[in-house]
Amino acid sequence: DTVVRDEELPVLPPYTTRDKFNSAMAALSRILGASNVEINDKPLKDGWYIEHPNTHDAYHLLPATDSVSSAACYPGSTEEVSAVVKWANQYEIPIFPISIGRNLGYGGAAPRVRGSVVVDLGRRMNKVLKLDGENYSCLVEPGVTYYKLYDEVKKSGLPMWIDPPDLGGGSVIGNTVDRGVGYTLYGDHFANHCGMEVVLPTGEVIRTGMGGLPGPDNTDSPTWQSFQYGFGPYYDGIFTQSNFGIVTKLGMWLMPETEHQTFMVTFPRDDDFGDIVEVIRPLMVKKILGNVPQLRNVIQELAVTGKPRSAFWKGTGRMPREVIREHASKMPCGDCAWVFYGTVYGTKEQIADTLKICKVEFGKIQGAKFIFPEDVPPDHYLHSRVSVCSGVPEIRELDWLNWKPNAGHLFFAPISPTKKEDARTIYEIVLKIHQKYGFDMFPTYCINTREMHYIANLVYDRNDEDEKQRAMACMREMIDECAKVGYGEYRTHILLADQVAQTYSWNNQALMKFHEVLKDTLDPKGILAPGRSGIWPAKYRNQGWEL
Amino acid sequence: DTVVRDEELPVLPPYTTRDKFNSAMAALSRILGASNVEINDKPLKDGWYIEHPNTHDAYHLLPATDSVSSAACYPGSTEEVSAVVKWANQYEIPIFPISIGRNLGYGGAAPRVRGSVVVDLGRRMNKVLKLDGENYSCLVEPGVTYYKLYDEVKKSGLPMWIDPPDLGGGSVIGNTVDRGVGYTLYGDHFANHCGMEVVLPTGEVIRTGMGGLPGPDNTDSPTWQSFQYGFGPYYDGIFTQSNFGIVTKLGMWLMPETEHQTFMVTFPRDDDFGDIVEVIRPLMVKKILGNVPQLRNVIQELAVTGKPRSAFWKGTGRMPREVIREHASKMPCGDCAWVFYGTVYGTKEQIADTLKICKVEFGKIQGAKFIFPEDVPPDHYLHSRVSVCSGVPEIRELDWLNWKPNAGHLFFAPISPTKKEDARTIYEIVLKIHQKYGFDMFPTYCINTREMHYIANLVYDRNDEDEKQRAMACMREMIDECAKVGYGEYRTHILLADQVAQTYSWNNQALMKFHEVLKDTLDPKGILAPGRSGIWPAKYRNQGWEL
Ligand SMILES: Cc1cc2nc3c(=O)[nH]c(=O)nc-3n(C[C@H](O)[C@H](O)[C@H](O)COP(=O)(O)OP(=O)(O)OC[C@H]3O[C@@H](n4cnc5c(N)ncnc54)[C@H](O)[C@@H]3O)c2cc1C
Ligand SMILES: Cc1cc2nc3c(=O)[nH]c(=O)nc-3n(C[C@H](O)[C@H](O)[C@H](O)COP(=O)(O)OP(=O)(O)OC[C@H]3O[C@@H](n4cnc5c(N)ncnc54)[C@H](O)[C@@H]3O)c2cc1C
Repeated sequence: DTVVRDEELPVLPPYTTRDKFNSAMAALSRILGASNVEINDKPLKDGWYIEHPNTHDAYHLLPATDSVSSAACYPGSTEEVSAVVKWANQYEIPIFPISIGRNLGYGGAAPRVRGSVVVDLGRRMNKVLKLDGENYSCLVEPGVTYYKLYDEVKKSGLPMWIDPPDLGGGSVIGNTVDRGVGYTLYGDHFANHCGMEVVLPTGEVIRTGMGGLPGPDNTDSPTWQSFQYGFGPYYDGIFTQSNFGIVTKLGMWLMPETEHQTFMVTFPRDDDFGDIVEVIRPLMVKKILGNVPQLRNVIQELAVTGKPRSAFWKGTGRMPREVIREHASKMPCGDCAWVFYGTVYGTKEQIADTLKICKVEFGKIQGAKFIFPEDVPPDHYLHSRVSVCSGVPEIRELDWLNWKPNAGHLFFAPISPTKKEDARTIYEIVLKIHQKYGFDMFPTYCINTREMHYIANLVYDRNDEDEKQRAMACMREMIDECAKVGYGEYRTHILLADQVAQTYSWNNQALMKFHEVLKDTLDPKGILAPGRSGIWPAKYRNQGWEL
Repeated sequence: DTVVRDEELPVLPPYTTRDKFNSAMAALSRILGASNVEINDKPLKDGWYIEHPNTHDAYHLLPATDSVSSAACYPGSTEEVSAVVKWANQYEIPIFPISIGRNLGYGGAAPRVRGSVVVDLGRRMNKVLKLDGENYSCLVEPGVTYYKLYDEVKKSGLPMWIDPPDLGGGSVIGNTVDRGVGYTLYGDHFANHCGMEVVLPTGEVIRTGMGGLPGPDNTDSPTWQSFQYGFGPYYDGIFTQSNFGIVTKLGMWLMPETEHQTFMVTFPRDDDFGDIVEVIRPLMVKKILGNVPQLRNVIQELAVTGKPRSAFWKGTGRMPREVIREHASKMPCGDCAWVFYGTVYGTKEQIADTLKICKVEFGKIQGAKFIFPEDVPPDHYLHSRVSVCSGVPEIRELDWLNWKPNAGHLFFAPISPTKKEDARTIYEIVLKIHQKYGFDMFPTYCINTREMHYIANLVYDRNDEDEKQRAMACMREMIDECAKVGYGEYRTHILLADQVAQTYSWNNQALMKFHEVLKDTLDPKGILAPGRSGIWPAKYRNQGWEL
C-alpha cells in the first residue's frame, strides 16, 4: 500500500514555478513555524482508516499519484488560518482545507487540484471549547472527532448524546460542512448545528448566527449556540459543500440521553422494497420512527460480517441471488431480501407503544419478521447499530470493505422522495448499470422523513486498474441516468463533483452561474479549494480542469 | 385614519428627476400593462388589518407621509418579476417587494427608501401550486396567505395542518423570508420550508435545493419539496431577512393532522418567571412539549379581551400592578402573574401521559394551576390558542391593539437562551426602560427549545406624536442596553434595522462588511430593497440614509 513516485517532488500547484513555490513555502514556514509545514515528498502510504494519509486519497480512484498535495500545513488558531489564507492569496497557491481528512468514499484528504497545499486544521485545532449541559450544546474546533466529542461528554457526566455517522473517526466539522448524516434524532447534522466561525477566502473572519453579536467584555455571545439564524441573511448554508470559507469553530446541539430500542425487521421478497418504503413514510412523517433508519439489501448482511466475498463464493462477476440466499438462510436474518434497521426512543412505555405500532405497520408486508439485539449473537452487526443509534461512535461499518482485496469504495447517493415509485425508478437504474459494469450492488436507503438518501456503495479493488475504470464509468452512468429522470446526488466524490454539479442545470445552469459570481467575489485569486463541489474560480474555468 | 398630503405626488425615489421617473413609469406600464401599475398619489389610508394599504406603514412610527412609495406594481409571473427587476436596473429605481404587506409591527408595507416602487407580488401571484398528501408538503406563490393555504388544504380533504403565526392574514412567503414563527410542531417556518425559486437583483432566476435539477420533460424536480439542501452551497438562508433576491415560489412542509390538547398554566408570583423558564427548558429539549409555547405576563389577559385600557383603569402612566391584579382576580386566569399557553400532540394516550409529566413539572412552581378550554367561557383567548396551535388561522391576536386608541405597535424581539439568568437580565432591562418611557409592558416569551424569542409588544397611539417619539426612544434604548450585555434581536422594525444590524458587530463589523460585499456583487445598481436589514448598496452607503 505504499506508492514510490518517480517524478520531481513535491508536485507543484498549477500557475507557479518551483522557485516561486519554494519561496512561498519558506514564507509559510516563517508564519507557522517550520515544524508546522510538511512537504509531501515521500512515498504515498494508503495506511488504513485510523492511520490515514493527509497527502492523497487513500481510496484512490485515479492513480494514487494523481490527486496529491504539494505539502500540508498545521495552523494552530483562527488567526493562523487567516494568515495561511492571506499567504495563499499573496503567492496564489491553491489550498485545500481538511478537518480530519477521512472523507473516504468522497475523496479522502485529496485536494481536487494537484499540488494544492492541504491545510490540515484538525492536527492542532482539536478542542471541545464548550459543553453546555443546560442547553445541550457544544462548540468544537475542526480536529474534534466523534470519538473525541463522545469522550468529553462522557467525562463531563452530562446526560447528553452525540450523533455519530457510521464511522466515528471523522470530525464533527468536516462531516457537517459536507452535510453528512448520522442516525439518532439529530441525524441531520446541518439542521442540528448552531453557529459558525468562518475564515473567508481573503482572510477576514466572521461569526454567523448570534455569534455576530459579542458578549460583554469580549466574551462569546451568550446565545451563539442557542439560536441558529441571528439577524439579517442567514449564511451558514453557503459554507457547506462549497469553497467559500474555512470553518474554524462550529456549534452543535446535543441530544438528551434517553431510553432506546434498536431492532431489525426482515422482509422476504426482493420486490417488496417499494411497499416497505410506503410503510416507512407515514411512520417517519408522524415521528413514530424519529431517527434516520436504514433499509438495506440482504447482501449487506453477508458483507458486514467482515468476511471477504470469496468466503461466500469463488465465482467471478456479480454474486448470484441464490448464493446470497443460501448464506443468508444460515444467518440470523434468515432467507430474506431486505433488512430494516430502526431505533425508537422515549420512556420504556413510549418505546413499548411505538414498537406495537411498528409491528402492526411493518406486519402489512407479508412475512415481515422482527429481530431484537437479544436474538442475535454478540458479534452481529445489529449491536453496532445499537451503539451508533444511541450516540456511541463505532468503526464496525468498515468491515464491509473486506468484501474485496485492497478495497476502496465510492458512494452513489441520489435523493429520492420517500415514495414507492421513486424508490423503484432509482433502484432499477442502479441495478441495470451495476449489472452492465459487473458490480455487486449494496443499496442502503437512509430515510430522512420526506426523502431518502439512496446510498449505493460501490466496492472496488484499488490494485485493479480495469475495475477502477469500470467503477468510475458505472458512477458516471448512474449520475447521468438518474439526472435524466429528475434525481440528483446530495453529495459526491470530489472527482465527480463537476458532473453532479452540472446536473443541477435548471434554467440554463443558472445555479452554476450564481456559484461562480459568488466564488469570483469572495475568492478573487481563486485559492480556496478550487473545483470543490464543481465550483471553479475564474482562473481555472474552461482551462480543462473540469472532469 | 386618512392623511391628505400637501406635497407634489407621487413622491420621487432618490437619485432621479420627475421626468426620468415619469418615463420609467411609462415603460413599466408597457411591461406589465397599465392596470398593473398604480401611482401613489391619493391620500394615505391606514385602513385596518384586512384592508391594509400597500402604500405606507399603517402602523406608522414616523409621520405616515414619511415612509411612502411612489407607486405599486403587480407582476403576474416569475417572468414579469424578472422583467420588473431588469426595468429597475435600467432606470435605477429602488423597488421594495412585498408578498402581502401585512408585516405590522415590523414596518407593514412601507419601503425603507421613500419613493421606492412597491412590487406587490401577492396581488396576482397567489396560487397554491402543489399540495402533496403523501409527502405532506406544498408549493406556494407570494400571495398565498395562511387563510388561503388553510382553505385549500381543507378543500383537498388531506389530513394535513398548516402552521399559522398569530395572525392568519400574512403570507407564507413573506412570513418565512422574514423568519417568522408559528406555534405547532412546525413553528420554525424557515426550518420547515423546502425549496425556493428566487429572482436575483439583476433579473436571473434560480431554484434552490433540489429545484436546481429539472424533472423529465421540463417538469419541476420530483424531489424539490422533499429535500432542503440539494448539492453544493445551500443558499436559502441568504434570501431571508435580506435584499439579495425576490422569492417567487416557496415549498413548505405540512404537519400530519393529530390529536392535540391546549392548556393554560397560571403562576401566582411576579418573580417566578425565571424558575418557570427552568421548568420549560428540559420539557422542550426532551420534546415533551414539542410546539412553540408562550409564557405571557398577566397584563395580556386583560389586553386580549379586546377591551381598551381605559375599561380597566382611567389613570395615566403605566397601569399599576394592583389594578392588573384586581381585574385578573375576577377573570378566569385568577390573581396570577404569568400565564403559560402550551399544546401537546399525539394520540389520546400520549397526550394524557404528557400532561401528567407537565403537571408534575409545572407543579414544582408553587401555586401553578392548570386551566383547560372547557374551564373557560367561549370568548376566552384560550380558544384562539387552540385554533392557532392546531393549524387554524385566526386574527384574535389583533384584539390587544384596542388597548390604546389609534393603536400602532412595535415588537422588541431579542433572543435569549432558555435559561433563568438570561431571561432575568433581559426582563430587567426591558422593565427599566418601559418604566422610564411610561409604557405598559407586554412580554411574551415564545419558547423555541434552546432559545426564547422574548417579544415585548409596545402599543402606542398613532395620533400622539409625543408617544410615538417615546416609543421609538424606548425601542432604541432597549436595543442598545440588551446589546451591551450580549443579546440581539431576531427581527426588527424596518426603521430600526440599521441600529440592530450594527449591534452584530463582532470583529469590527465583519458581518456588515460581508453583507456589503455580497450586496454590491449581487445588486450592483442597488435597486432591491435598499436598507432592508440594515444592508445598504454602495450608492446609498454613508449618504445619511442610516438611521
Ligand atoms: C464505511 C464508511 C461509512 C461512512 N458512513 C458515513 C455516514 O454514515 N454518514 C456520513 O455522513 N458519512 C459517512 N462516511 C463518509 C465520511 O467518513 C464521513 O463523512 C466523515 O465524517 C468525514 O469527516 P472528516 O472529518 O474526515 O472530513 P474531511 O475529510 O476533513 O472533510 C470533508 C470535506 O469537507 C471539507 N472541509 C473539511 N473541513 C472543513 C472546514 N473546516 N472548512 C471548510 N471545509 C472543510 C473538506 O475540504 C472535504 O471536502 C462513511 C465513510 C465510510 C468509508
Ligand atoms: C398582532 C400581531 C401579531 C403577530 N404575530 C406574529 C407571529 O406570531 N409570528 C410572526 O412571525 N409574525 C407575527 N406578526 C407579524 C406579521 O403580521 C407577520 O409576520 C406576517 O405573516 C407578515 O406577512 P406578510 O405576508 O404580510 O409579509 P410582507 O409584509 O409581505 O413581507 C415581510 C417582509 O419580507 C419581505 N418580503 C416579502 N415577500 C418577499 C418576497 N417574495 N421576496 C423577498 N422578500 C420578501 C418584505 O420586504 C418585508 O420586509 C404579528 C403582527 C401583529 C400585528
